[in-house]
Amino acid sequence: MTPNDTRFPTLWLDDLQVGQRFAGGSVEVSEQDVKRFAREYDPQPFHLDDEAARDTVFGGLAASGWHTAGLTMRLLTTGGAPIAGGLVGAGAELSWPRPTRPGDRLSVLSEVVSITPSRSKPERGIVVLRTETRNQHGEVVLVLTSRLMVRRRAG
Amino acid sequence: MTPNDTRFPTLWLDDLQVGQRFAGGSVEVSEQDVKRFAREYDPQPFHLDDEAARDTVFGGLAASGWHTAGLTMRLLTTGGAPIAGGLVGAGAELSWPRPTRPGDRLSVLSEVVSITPSRSKPERGIVVLRTETRNQHGEVVLVLTSRLMVRRRAG
Repeated sequence: MTPNDTRFPTLWLDDLQVGQRFAGGSVEVSEQDVKRFAREYDPQPFHLDDEAARDTVFGGLAASGWHTAGLTMRLLTTGGAPIAGGLVGAGAELSWPRPTRPGDRLSVLSEVVSITPSRSKPERGIVVLRTETRNQHGEVVLVLTSRLMVRRRAG
Repeated sequence: MTPNDTRFPTLWLDDLQVGQRFAGGSVEVSEQDVKRFAREYDPQPFHLDDEAARDTVFGGLAASGWHTAGLTMRLLTTGGAPIAGGLVGAGAELSWPRPTRPGDRLSVLSEVVSITPSRSKPERGIVVLRTETRNQHGEVVLVLTSRLMVRRRAG
């Protein structure tokens, strides 16, 4: 996916089209960030301690997948997915092809997969957005497919 | 789902069976927690400011769905899913039937949905675990279906 230049306008359901792409900024993840998130939300040894992580499937300190998801959401909400009314998710699918590591710089690219007007609520619809989060080497650390509630432009 | 009493042992792939259930502890979410998470990972008005949230689909301050997911992971990793070697997710599906509100107390119940031994890596398999996170009123705020990598008991 490559970004287009539609970063700043806020888009309503009427403005979106399948295949439309968005890019966001980037964020760096420090070792301190990784451990701080883990202590609060995912206190497992491979997210807390490099030594303890060596003998695990991660082979060294790795960010919680939920930390990667949170940072992805931050990038989406701060320019990466310029949806009017904000990003309100009904559901999501995630896969983590590889972990985020301390020192990684993450960025997001998103694409509109489908647009389904609501039958019961004509003023809105469901937009499926597929987001890839990559590290500074271009490797995908998260694929997030979100079902977002998006409003039509008011009358 | 109702919990069984298998909370503390750590379970290997060999020990798990479809239909097995686990319960965890609970965690309360303060308004301060909601805003602090949102500032860092999901800085949208309906997660940051009660007044601004009133006119949105949430009708008042609501926790980020990623905050609910993080708290769910905390409950799973601190007794809610006693898997040996820890909880390592290959992927997940989430739906948020309703938001978590400031003051809510969340708890989790999980059930083993399927167990698939790996063909290429005989020492492990994929376990699908379905978790419901509920608030103090018994209302579901998150359904999380996780694909977990689980190891066999060593020789």
